Amino acid sequence: MEYAFNPVEKQKIIAIIGIGLIGGSLAAKIRVRGVFDHIIGVDNDPVHCEVALKMQLVDEIVTIQDAISKAGFIVLATPVDSMLHLLPSLLDAVTDQVVMDTGSTKQQICDKINGHVHRARFVATHPVWGSDMHGPAAARAESFENKVAVICEAGKSDPDAVSAVKVLYEKLGMRVVEMNPKDHDIHTAYISHLPHLISYALANTVLEKERKEDSIRSLASGGFDSATRLAKSSSNVWTPILNQNRDNVLFVLDEYMDELKKFRNCLERGNCGDISYLIEHANFIKEVVH
Amino acid sequence: MEYAFNPVEKQKIIAIIGIGLIGGSLAAKIRVRGVFDHIIGVDNDPVHCEVALKMQLVDEIVTIQDAISKAGFIVLATPVDSMLHLLPSLLDAVTDQVVMDTGSTKQQICDKINGHVHRARFVATHPVWGSDMHGPAAARAESFENKVAVICEAGKSDPDAVSAVKVLYEKLGMRVVEMNPKDHDIHTAYISHLPHLISYALANTVLEKERKEDSIRSLASGGFDSATRLAKSSSNVWTPILNQNRDNVLFVLDEYMDELKKFRNCLERGNCGDISYLIEHANFIKEVVH
Repeated sequence: MEYAFNPVEKQKIIAIIGIGLIGGSLAAKIRVRGVFDHIIGVDNDPVHCEVALKMQLVDEIVTIQDAISKAGFIVLATPVDSMLHLLPSLLDAVTDQVVMDTGSTKQQICDKINGHVHRARFVATHPVWGSDMHGPAAARAESFENKVAVICEAGKSDPDAVSAVKVLYEKLGMRVVEMNPKDHDIHTAYISHLPHLISYALANTVLEKERKEDSIRSLASGGFDSATRLAKSSSNVWTPILNQNRDNVLFVLDEYMDELKKFRNCLERGNCGDISYLIEHANFIKEVVH
Repeated sequence: MEYAFNPVEKQKIIAIIGIGLIGGSLAAKIRVRGVFDHIIGVDNDPVHCEVALKMQLVDEIVTIQDAISKAGFIVLATPVDSMLHLLPSLLDAVTDQVVMDTGSTKQQICDKINGHVHRARFVATHPVWGSDMHGPAAARAESFENKVAVICEAGKSDPDAVSAVKVLYEKLGMRVVEMNPKDHDIHTAYISHLPHLISYALANTVLEKERKEDSIRSLASGGFDSATRLAKSSSNVWTPILNQNRDNVLFVLDEYMDELKKFRNCLERGNCGDISYLIEHANFIKEVVH
């Protein structure tokens, strides 16, 4: 009698290409919620692969080609420069699979595969969460809980693909919003890319002047910690994000420098009334973040 | 027989002038550690007084004149502009009491009472801790634990006064370091005043452009929260700090803007190698803060 081989259905298999902080956290949450029966990992960093297997984030590590042929749902969670490079050939190889990305920039990736014969199998997304940590060792299942996942150009994707992505994000505890890539990229420039840039610049300012003195270590307190938290974020992830979104980042950076100059002018004149006005205006950020 | 009135000894009474976040947190910790038997509060804000009494941060609220005559140890914990105004007349009135301040700027306060007949009863200090919260309701006994307290110009204070201040801070769980006012003010410009300024400017940049859209609320994530945490800090406290330390703040702000311009130039040229270099340099901040 022949042995009845009963593999996991393709629709129950997810492949995550790039098992870093984001891919790893998605895997952890998918595991906890039991959204898929089998999780495949792909990563060109052998340490990531080893950690992801050891943490049981993934069931197996395979090549990208094997992942595409085995899985019904493919998540591209690499740095955004690799996404631009990988996505066209990945879409060349898909048939009926759903493919989504998790990139922090959306215009270039959408433009890159616009008109591709399998464009409709792709859903452009951005689960809006990050950390100054990186790699699968920092992956946390709870990371995405109550956060927003953006879907861009949903109209260019097959309805079943959009639906599958929405179901996935909702099962992960996220709220899905639709937005066009242009709006997404300018908004994330303000609320994510600019904050990273100014934190990096603060770190460099302080390191440049104070590294030979012990005064930072002794005086650095909670305020400095929070202001430099994002400065710990890795260049592998953030260089391509800033570069891909550079027109928007340059635009908001110029606006930011204008705001700094307003403070500079008031300080130079010793105008306390105007300094207070600028600070009280800034205090309204309490209404936005808690 | 005459009733033997047995008041608390003067040396066991501390008066805290300014029962806000800092004064209130000191009071809370002094209470927990039993450093003084009786805590007097002085504040010109009736809400602060009511909250401080209700939270039992202080045993009584009195006038500044009564506080000076009753207490053996006087802490000036008002905003730094009020300190400049209050300290000379406060020192006029002291006899053998110990007086210390808690201000985030040290040069102006030290200069202000240099040569005062009771200069030696004063110890210039800065317990290095803060929060974006303010007022006594935000006071926490654990705030100062394991933080640094700076003492400036210890040589201009009577040894018994310096010793009493050191004992107080050590009982509060702090590590005392000595520093001259010039070094203190430039170092705090880097690690505290500049971070506040850039957080205010970030908040204003985002509020200016995005307040008519709901996109911040939906997309703002952990990174934005930490980058704008300091922007919630009150103008009553921060306007006078920035103004008193304005030469140093302007100096470090210019250096900071130069660091931003380095990023701007690399971005404009799309020079990923140089962006990576700047980010990797900033990542060394990990060695400073954890």
